[in-house]
Amino acid sequence: MGDALEQARGRARRLKLMAFDVDGVLTDGALFYTDQGVEIKAFNTLDGHGLKMLGQAGITVAIITGRRARCVELRAENLGIDHLYQGVENKLAQMHSLLAELGLTPEQAGYMGDDLPDLPLMLACGFSAAPNDGHPLVRARAWLTCERGGGRGAVREVCEFILETQERLAAALAPYLGTGEP
Amino acid sequence: MGDALEQARGRARRLKLMAFDVDGVLTDGALFYTDQGVEIKAFNTLDGHGLKMLGQAGITVAIITGRRARCVELRAENLGIDHLYQGVENKLAQMHSLLAELGLTPEQAGYMGDDLPDLPLMLACGFSAAPNDGHPLVRARAWLTCERGGGRGAVREVCEFILETQERLAAALAPYLGTGEP
Amino acid sequence: MGDALEQARGRARRLKLMAFDVDGVLTDGALFYTDQGVEIKAFNTLDGHGLKMLGQAGITVAIITGRRARCVELRAENLGIDHLYQGVENKLAQMHSLLAELGLTPEQAGYMGDDLPDLPLMLACGFSAAPNDGHPLVRARAWLTCERGGGRGAVREVCEFILETQERLAAALAPYLGTGEP
Amino acid sequence: MGDALEQARGRARRLKLMAFDVDGVLTDGALFYTDQGVEIKAFNTLDGHGLKMLGQAGITVAIITGRRARCVELRAENLGIDHLYQGVENKLAQMHSLLAELGLTPEQAGYMGDDLPDLPLMLACGFSAAPNDGHPLVRARAWLTCERGGGRGAVREVCEFILETQERLAAALAPYLGTGEP
Repeated sequence: MGDALEQARGRARRLKLMAFDVDGVLTDGALFYTDQGVEIKAFNTLDGHGLKMLGQAGITVAIITGRRARCVELRAENLGIDHLYQGVENKLAQMHSLLAELGLTPEQAGYMGDDLPDLPLMLACGFSAAPNDGHPLVRARAWLTCERGGGRGAVREVCEFILETQERLAAALAPYLGTGEP
Repeated sequence: MGDALEQARGRARRLKLMAFDVDGVLTDGALFYTDQGVEIKAFNTLDGHGLKMLGQAGITVAIITGRRARCVELRAENLGIDHLYQGVENKLAQMHSLLAELGLTPEQAGYMGDDLPDLPLMLACGFSAAPNDGHPLVRARAWLTCERGGGRGAVREVCEFILETQERLAAALAPYLGTGEP
Repeated sequence: MGDALEQARGRARRLKLMAFDVDGVLTDGALFYTDQGVEIKAFNTLDGHGLKMLGQAGITVAIITGRRARCVELRAENLGIDHLYQGVENKLAQMHSLLAELGLTPEQAGYMGDDLPDLPLMLACGFSAAPNDGHPLVRARAWLTCERGGGRGAVREVCEFILETQERLAAALAPYLGTGEP
Repeated sequence: MGDALEQARGRARRLKLMAFDVDGVLTDGALFYTDQGVEIKAFNTLDGHGLKMLGQAGITVAIITGRRARCVELRAENLGIDHLYQGVENKLAQMHSLLAELGLTPEQAGYMGDDLPDLPLMLACGFSAAPNDGHPLVRARAWLTCERGGGRGAVREVCEFILETQERLAAALAPYLGTGEP
């Protein structure tokens, strides 16, 4: 167990790109539909700050999802995430294309997913994570299973885990903890 | 206990049609109303993938519900579910009509419900299931009570339970687990 | 403890009118506001069926609430509840007026609330109930504290509790349990 | 532990101004986005009554938040909160400006937050509080960590805690408990 965590740390240490699924990861899996055909998603404020810290530490943040909804665009804009890929039939192929664009290897990339269609990409990346309410088979194969659920702070846990393994967490927290402030 | 589970497995093994209630099953029972008279429902992403796997394995998926909302139509379209019956006063009669249309017996059909009006149909089908937050009397009479609640993955559990008893789960999972892939 | 429950049963047995608060009772207390000034509330499907059974058993159902929202009107219409009182400054006075209209005594009326402004009315009625996530001082003073939370089935519990004490629950359930059916 | 609680009480006793964050404090952290770009927030009815009691007891209530949404304005209006500061880049500077306006010292002010950007302000105030699902580093540094989560009554707990330390809770509750009523 401790050994598995050490392995997860070693893998997270190499990341230069971290990609996330939307439904069940950035949300708790709830798909709100109105009678008028409007879709609504519930994102999480803790997650948002984690993604910002990750980007500020120089790690590229991406969203790769099989579904497509306008509200995800709005959230990505809000968080300054340029690498947004929606309606992706083959997530693995999309990742390979992104890796080529960024000049990275699969070992330098991670993916966080909650369900079976996420697994091929998770298994192909150097690092993977799952929320604590993800599908059991996905949790069992992820390098890191979070304590929190999707849309409830699981993404934030992953962001801080990566920053910590790269010895960048202290610097990211310093402005808030009152150390390193002028 | 183990015996009851074995009976449930034997019954699920014969299914060619699985029907689901909406409120409390495909959702957590929350009925969102806006001041403008718009209704909103929160479906679940894990459930959606389960229903797709069930259909791909050749089992007919149906929705039979007493209420009526446009957003359920949208979700059914999204999942490719053709057999959608809303505003059904007599669920049992609706099922008999569907069975006749499909040339199936009640033993080949299952229903998942959460409340008392679902019980007559559940008792008339070969197999029945309930979410873990359904009405106690319904849970007590269902062949399978899920670990998860309605709208929180209970439907997904039922889908995988059925596929597993029919020895179709491994094939359904293979594309994602990296076995059986070219 | 058993004694308190017996007292609660004796009091519920006399009810001819049961009134409910909205926020925190018929909902989980969430007040959804959109940027456009639209309010949304999340009611519960289990609760809805309980209120219908209560009405069918001849007990008058009322809603008395301090706030006012159009979506509550829509839900009340949907459930066939005629006695809807919103924007009520003095809930106790409203109840007295309703009792006079119906020719009932306070002992024949009950109220379910979750917060302090509900207490004066709860204490003046023959019976009172609170959801398990209501304010501690309200739960401590209610004749019945539910196992479920507001908007999660607490109202349904209260409806069945009342029907059971009046020996009407078996008749209400019979159509669904397959006894008493032709 | 008991000592820390005593210190928290002593600090809350001096408060003349209590300010709150929005996302994760007045809500559970869920950021609802519709496809049409409308934002929705879920506030809590128990919290609302707590904020009203705090104001009625003569303590100034303020909202200081980094994000900006029209629905927060609507909720603040609804609760009669005049001191609403949205889109605040530097929360600490905003508080200093408010303190100057009100002629108060930092020891007479408190802030409730859930995440790292709230910490500098929390540490600069005489009193601070966090919901039980706030960020671990924030909970560890808050004078009071609530039993309830954000948007689930944590704000109400804080309001009653402050009133109790100032020996104003009994008077605030009296109208509801049937003591002190004419």
